This record gives sequence, C-alpha cells and structure tokens, in this order.
Amino acid sequence: MKAPVCIIGGGPSGLLLSQLLDIEGIDNIVLEKQSREYVLGRIRAGVLEHGFAQLMREARCGERMDREGEIHEGFFIAHDGVMDRVDLHKYSGGSSVVVYGQTELTRDLYEARDRMNGKVIHNAEDVAPHDLKSDRPYVTYRQGGQIFRVDCDYVIGADGFHGVSRKSIPREVLQEFERVYPFGWLGVLSRTKPVSPELIYSRHERGFALCSLRSQTLSRYYIQAPLEDKVEDWSDDAFWTELRNRLPTDVANKLISGPSIEKSIAPLRSFVAEPMRHGRLFLAGDAAHIVPPTGARGLNSAASDIYYLYHAMVDHYKKGNDTGLDAYSQRALARVWKAQRFSWWMTTLLHRFPTNLPYEDRLQQTELQYLFSSEKALGSLAENYVGLPF
Amino acid sequence: MKAPVCIIGGGPSGLLLSQLLDIEGIDNIVLEKQSREYVLGRIRAGVLEHGFAQLMREARCGERMDREGEIHEGFFIAHDGVMDRVDLHKYSGGSSVVVYGQTELTRDLYEARDRMNGKVIHNAEDVAPHDLKSDRPYVTYRQGGQIFRVDCDYVIGADGFHGVSRKSIPREVLQEFERVYPFGWLGVLSRTKPVSPELIYSRHERGFALCSLRSQTLSRYYIQAPLEDKVEDWSDDAFWTELRNRLPTDVANKLISGPSIEKSIAPLRSFVAEPMRHGRLFLAGDAAHIVPPTGARGLNSAASDIYYLYHAMVDHYKKGNDTGLDAYSQRALARVWKAQRFSWWMTTLLHRFPTNLPYEDRLQQTELQYLFSSEKALGSLAENYVGLPF
Repeated sequence: MKAPVCIIGGGPSGLLLSQLLDIEGIDNIVLEKQSREYVLGRIRAGVLEHGFAQLMREARCGERMDREGEIHEGFFIAHDGVMDRVDLHKYSGGSSVVVYGQTELTRDLYEARDRMNGKVIHNAEDVAPHDLKSDRPYVTYRQGGQIFRVDCDYVIGADGFHGVSRKSIPREVLQEFERVYPFGWLGVLSRTKPVSPELIYSRHERGFALCSLRSQTLSRYYIQAPLEDKVEDWSDDAFWTELRNRLPTDVANKLISGPSIEKSIAPLRSFVAEPMRHGRLFLAGDAAHIVPPTGARGLNSAASDIYYLYHAMVDHYKKGNDTGLDAYSQRALARVWKAQRFSWWMTTLLHRFPTNLPYEDRLQQTELQYLFSSEKALGSLAENYVGLPF
Repeated sequence: MKAPVCIIGGGPSGLLLSQLLDIEGIDNIVLEKQSREYVLGRIRAGVLEHGFAQLMREARCGERMDREGEIHEGFFIAHDGVMDRVDLHKYSGGSSVVVYGQTELTRDLYEARDRMNGKVIHNAEDVAPHDLKSDRPYVTYRQGGQIFRVDCDYVIGADGFHGVSRKSIPREVLQEFERVYPFGWLGVLSRTKPVSPELIYSRHERGFALCSLRSQTLSRYYIQAPLEDKVEDWSDDAFWTELRNRLPTDVANKLISGPSIEKSIAPLRSFVAEPMRHGRLFLAGDAAHIVPPTGARGLNSAASDIYYLYHAMVDHYKKGNDTGLDAYSQRALARVWKAQRFSWWMTTLLHRFPTNLPYEDRLQQTELQYLFSSEKALGSLAENYVGLPF
C-alpha cells in the first residue's frame, strides 16, 4: 500500500488528523491495533477546549457535538466549607468548554471517516515503522497471519503512551521527563442525574473529589485514592459514602447514587518526551505526553498537536512550504509544556499529598483563597482551562 | 512606668506603630534590646509596597522617602538567555514600589519619634512580658543593673524572629508552620553604580542571582549559595565572577564591581506562627512570620500587620470598638499567608533546587514562558509585587 501519510493509532487524535487531511485531499491510512468496538469502549474524559471544538467543526464532525454536547461556562471549586465558582466565560473573555464524552467524539470521527471512505485498518498487529531517517519510510503490520507494508512520506505516531511510535525513537535521541503522583483516581460512571450541572472540584482533608458528567443522565465521579487500593476493594456503597464525605453537606445531600456501570483506578502521571519529531516520524498526543486528569488537559493537549501537524502537512503538500514541519516539535512542545504546567498546578492545588508539610497544606489553602480574591488569578486559571491559543 | 501600649522591639515595625499611635494621641513606650546605632547598622531590604509608602506618609515620615527613594515601575527577569521586563505600573493598574533602604527608613522613623519626644528605650535587656491573659499585663526589663516595669493595656511583640514575644505564648497555644530551603543568599553591598536602574532577578542553571540597589550609588547584589558555604570562603573576586556567570552577557559586561562594604550569607526560610494574638499580646512582623527575600515581602508583610493593629488600636481607644482587636489575628494572617504564597512562588520560580527532577526544572522554565505570554499571569505577579490591598 501507498499513502503520503501513515497514521499509527485510531484514537481521537489519529482519526481527527486523518479526517482533516482527507478533506484537504491528502491521502492517508490509519492503522489501529484494536477493533473499533474496543476503541469505542474506552471511557475517557470529555471536556473539550474551545479550540478543539472548533477543530472538530473544521473536520466536519461538529454537528452532534454542537447538538448534544453541553456548553459549560464555569465550574465550582469546593474548599474550606465553601463552594466558589470559576466563571470561565467572564474571566476568559467570552470562551467556554464543551462537555462531550470522548467515546461520542470518537464515534463521530469514525462515522465521518466512513462517510469519506477513509482508510482505517483495525486489528493491525505488530505495527512497526521503518527507515524513519530516510525519505522513504514505511510501516509494516500483521493481519490474519499476513504481513502488510505501507510506503509513505511521513509517519504519525498517535498510538498513545504504550504505543510503538515513541519507542521507535532511539534512546540516545529521546529525552523523557516524568513526574508521578503518590495517589490515583478511583472513578465511577453511573446512569444517574449529575449532582450539579457544572463540574465540582473538591479539595478536602480526606482527599480530592470530582463531580463530573458526560451528559445530564450520565454522571462521572472520582475520588483520590491510594495507589495500592484495588477496584475490588471498593464496593459501590463504599465509593458513594467516601465521595459524600468529601463534598460540602448540601451537595452530598443532593447526590443521587446508583449502580456503577464502570469503575476503575487510574494512576496520575506527568510525562513529556522530547523531541516530538524524529526524521519522518511525528509524535502526537499521549504518545509524546501525558497529564494527570485534573483540569482536563489530556485530549486537549493532543488536539493542539493535531492542529500544528495538520497545518504543517497542508503547507507541505499544498504550498511546498516545510516551515511548519520543521517547527513542529518546538511549537507543539511549547504548548504541551504549558498544559503540563496547568495540570500540575491544578493537581497540586486540589489533592492531599500525604508527605506535605503542614506549611505546604496551608499554602494550598492560601492559593485557593488568593485565587478567589483576585480577578487576575481567576483570569489566569480561566484562560488555561478554556485552552491557551494554538 | 505606665503607658496604654508597650511595644517590644524598636525596628521599623515597632517604630512605625509607635509613631502612628502617638499622632493619634495614644501614648506608648518602645523597648529595644540594642542601641540605636546597632539597629541602624543592620543591612536589610528596601523595596516598599505602595501601601507601606502610604503608611509612612500617614506617620509623617514620608518626606525624605519621597525625595530620595526611587519609584520603580518595573523589574526584569533574566531567564533562558533573555531579559523580560515586568511592567508593574501597567499590570497592577498604575501602582509601583519605592526603593528606599530599610536603614534610611528606620533612621527617618527614629527622627520622627525624637521630634515628638517618643519614648524609645534602648539597651533594654531581659525584656519579659507578664500576665498577658489578665487585663493588667506588664513588661519588665533590665537596664544598668536595675529592673524596670511598664504597666500597660496591651503589649505589641515587634521584636523579630528571635525575640521574646512569640516565645511568651505557651507552646500548646501556638502553631508554627515552617519551610526551609536548601540554599541561602550570599549578599554583597558595594559603593558602585548599579548595573541596572531596575532590579534584575536572574534564573540561571548555576543558581539564582539578583541585581538590586539601595540608590544609584549603592548596589546590592545576591547569589544563591549552598548553606554550608561560609562568607570567608567567598573573596570579593569570586563573588563578582560567579555573579557575572549568572547574568546575561550584556549585563555581565556592564557590571561595575568594587570592594564589598558588607558581605553575608542568609538562609532562606518561610515561617508563620498562629495565632498572632495571645490575650493582651499582639505579634507583628518577623516575630510572627518570615519569608524568603525573593519578591521583597518581609518588611512589607510587617507593614500590613502594623496597618491592622494601628486601626484596631484607634478604634479601641477612640471609639470603644474592639472589633479590630478581636479580628486582628485572623485579618493579619489572611494577608500574611498571601505574602507567604507569593514569596514561596517567586523563590520556587527562580532558584535552582538541587533535588529537583528534570521534569520540575522544565516546569520552572515553562512557568516563566507562560508568565511572559500571559497578561493575566503578569497581572497576578504585579498585584502581589506592589502589594495586595490591606
């Protein structure tokens, strides 16, 4: 097979880029290790930045998002017995975020690819990029016992943290930056009406909690939990009790609990790999960087990579201009690190760190008190939450 | 002796309160352990917040400050090979700071006290407050082998971190919060023209450096140094060489060095004691809280205590209203903690932390890159640097 662009990974990043390039007449092939059902079964976040939503519309995938997604113009932070609201719309100068589950978004992207007869190959096993430093790279994969080969100009590594793409970059070239957090998030999805139409982040002495949602009938709740905890140790009842303990009384009283339809513990990690380009390989999204979920930067941080890559590819194929490709790694990383900074800050602000000094706990409280006393500080939070400009 | 208010400590906080109360006709006595010459010999910071300068004027001590002090409407941060300016005036909405050495300010306060025949007793040894939980507290001290006693309504503990006042509060009542930093500041004062009319804070891989000044003929430079270093190990030459190493080349080339007229290493510490009131004792300034010098909050944080105490005393003596006295500890601490937060942030932003992960070093760089890309973030820095409202 031949295609100018071979995209490894059929998650939202890979599909969005595939769709955007196809619209511009740039042929591409997506290779996905899993089945479509598997990809759509993943439960992930769903807070989309203003700019990401715009990119979905540009990819002609914004219709259902605009119809069913919820525009959120603010969120709450519960702390020290009070509930303070962050008015995103006001403090970002008119922006907002769209709450729309990643599963739905991925489904829309698949359907858009189908409509355009996009080449998305599932169950592609043992995917391996080759000759990345040459100008004739290719990617091989196995399917039904047979080996296939895609010859291309460029390989896009959008295959997530555990994917093969980043691992194809020699160790001596790649620099990895990492921070792990001494806790995880225990999350429950339930078919219940969310306790609040807007998200509630709660800083509590028992640990962080988050009341989130996918829609007005699908709630997503999280509590900070020790890394050693196992999902099996947490009955639904124990989860709801602990969640209520960490919320202001009036919120806890309103909370409607129900059977969990998904329950899992995820570790929190900050990770960046540099550079994001190696020869003809370009990394995008989780393949190059991971954030803790606080502040909902994960998918959004991938979207900015796609934005830069998409424009760089168009400039290359349509105008013969390689500036965007050459600047990609630096440009993407500049924004990636800002999202890392924000995620680290929100995580540090709201979680209980077992090894914190009492002084540091007080600083945390003070940070929140300062935040809600300062239009400047709220402005800084808001501009990061709705997404810094690409 | 008798006086409604007995102030322990004849540094700038104690003298300023004494002066303000005296102007309002509230009699007071200041007890200072050291001689006036000793107090005036201390070399300390000299960046005064807008609100502090205003308080000096209210105390009729602002004339020379306004004549000789320099208004700074901005400062520089050198990082990653660039020099970025923080326009305080622009981003704080028109405020600025006054650079005026603490020695000069203390001299003005002494002269003002002299003019009003203020009672400032020097060389008061073994100062001890008594019966603080009664409504008849008193303070004793020794002078020339004799014991004296001051009967008063209120005792003000403005005697610094090592003073007796905080130590008079029972251990079980006092809560102390502390953070120490794994480095100190090596400072040199020299009679040379400052390299820059405005301060330059430098983040450098060799460590932090600061180009500060007392006036346009008196420079004050600092470099981050290991805590184990001794002043004797640092020749003037070694200091100037290391300072130049940590500055952008064009700044280093312009730097005029000269013999040090003072050279010292100070550890960096964050410290807060709570509550700031115990019975009839009110703590103010360093007696209750210490900040690292980055961001120049030390003296300014004391000034806000004095502002609250002064108004509380006036309300008590002139209007019979004790609200201010009763709210003092809580009100003062709310602002103290915000100054702690800011000092911690500036310190963390600009110093090299030997135990930092590479990830954390990158976050530091990113924080600076974000700062200078965001009007909101600059606004937050500026409002803290010129001083949050009292």
